Amino acid sequence: MFDLKRYLAEKRQVVNVALDRLCGDADSPFRIVQAMRYSLMAGGKRLRPILCIAAAEAVGGDATHVLMPACALEMIHTYSLIHDDLPAMDNDELRRGRPTNHIQFDEATALLAGDALLTMAFEVLTEGAEQGSQDPARRIRIIREIAAAAGYRGMIEGQMRDLAAEGLVLDAASLEAMHSLKTGALIRASVAVGAISGGADTDRIHALLCYAGRIGLAFQVTDDLLNVEGDSQVMGKATGTDKGRGKSTYPALMGLQDSKRFSHRLIQEALAAIAEFDDRSEPLRAIAEYILHRKR
Amino acid sequence: MFDLKRYLAEKRQVVNVALDRLCGDADSPFRIVQAMRYSLMAGGKRLRPILCIAAAEAVGGDATHVLMPACALEMIHTYSLIHDDLPAMDNDELRRGRPTNHIQFDEATALLAGDALLTMAFEVLTEGAEQGSQDPARRIRIIREIAAAAGYRGMIEGQMRDLAAEGLVLDAASLEAMHSLKTGALIRASVAVGAISGGADTDRIHALLCYAGRIGLAFQVTDDLLNVEGDSQVMGKATGTDKGRGKSTYPALMGLQDSKRFSHRLIQEALAAIAEFDDRSEPLRAIAEYILHRKR
Repeated sequence: MFDLKRYLAEKRQVVNVALDRLCGDADSPFRIVQAMRYSLMAGGKRLRPILCIAAAEAVGGDATHVLMPACALEMIHTYSLIHDDLPAMDNDELRRGRPTNHIQFDEATALLAGDALLTMAFEVLTEGAEQGSQDPARRIRIIREIAAAAGYRGMIEGQMRDLAAEGLVLDAASLEAMHSLKTGALIRASVAVGAISGGADTDRIHALLCYAGRIGLAFQVTDDLLNVEGDSQVMGKATGTDKGRGKSTYPALMGLQDSKRFSHRLIQEALAAIAEFDDRSEPLRAIAEYILHRKR
Repeated sequence: MFDLKRYLAEKRQVVNVALDRLCGDADSPFRIVQAMRYSLMAGGKRLRPILCIAAAEAVGGDATHVLMPACALEMIHTYSLIHDDLPAMDNDELRRGRPTNHIQFDEATALLAGDALLTMAFEVLTEGAEQGSQDPARRIRIIREIAAAAGYRGMIEGQMRDLAAEGLVLDAASLEAMHSLKTGALIRASVAVGAISGGADTDRIHALLCYAGRIGLAFQVTDDLLNVEGDSQVMGKATGTDKGRGKSTYPALMGLQDSKRFSHRLIQEALAAIAEFDDRSEPLRAIAEYILHRKR
């Protein structure tokens, strides 16, 4: 029986050690480094880097080759959260139970810390190139994949749509399109990058992209469900907030039962997409199940 | 006699055509594309891309190979201006005689347009990789150079210092260090990238970095001088503003005459650094002279 809890803890540890090394000194006198580390080392789930590593392993790749791309993905995710929380965007003062970056530091510093993490992601993607740890052409393909996913046709367009949707009721297609860009693009890039790094062929990359698309959306649906039904003690954050804000959510759109059925169906489709993969894809399967049943 | 005016106009045209092609459709329905294009196509001097191309040519490189890095540098410069103008930073409402991005659009859109341009710069740096127009290892070195220059040890730290200096009087060393990071890092990267792309050896890259360091600082000194003595009609922007804001400037620090002497000395040093280069470095020499004598 595959022990997902242990797998996640181990990978999280590897990623945290690498991020800690990459992102300046813990006792740096530079305020920009302090602000970058404050958000980057705040103890996220590390879902994107772990998916990236698990996808590389699933296609028989080397987990060490994919560690830098995995870290880059987490830096991009973190930058997007810092900018999302700014007063000009969602104006949030708390994240993971701590003051958001611009509350802890100041708006200008938070803005620049986000910029710096985004920039650093691409520096990290060139890390070790001189030692030849990764084929340069493959490395460039990885950089291209990540930049496209994080850019104006991907994550950033998702944020634009999320902002534009404020106070509106989205239909199912628009809600899915928004999530598919805002969070889906980087999640798909995470498995794609793992697969590319592991030397996967086009068919396998395609299957993994399908897997990632489904679990990414399922993650959003369960996020919405937890906001209605979750235990705020377990989650470490308030519930019921979506309704108060008039946010478009799956429970609001299709009701609780149909939202649950929808998330189940998405996970079944994710598992079907990688059904022909061998035992090395066990972590990806377990992660899909975990997304369905998570309590936080 | 080398015709700099013509050279600048020609290169600017090449860069503008490439940027126009790279950055979505001119009549795109997407607000994010409109906002990106609004600032990117606002008719800047294109100093960084032109320096990049001129450095490549100076070492015998191929100007077409360096066009994408040149465009990436301009995207990064433009993103930094958009974020710099935001209310949380300099809170400027006008740039080049037009409303700044967040005035023309809104703060959230301006923030995301900056993020999108920064991200797109790295996508552009992978452009054409599959056609093998540039050696992949060299391409990765270029990405690394640009990410390092734009990041938390380069341009972003410069912006942090500029913000921290508000209302303070900096000494010469601190003022030079701030400029060397805030604008110098990307200008040095521009010539370094051109040189790397052109296959220059370490000595030549070193010489060009020295050249770029000097002209970058001279550009700041002449900027300060123009703010005191310039013709606001010719420059298309107000003069005398630095004094009103209590900004640390070279004229304030060392007086007008010594500032002029300083900028002359910097340009002499820049020219000395590339004295052994052949005729193909004529544009670089002319650009250095132009920086000294520019009226806007």
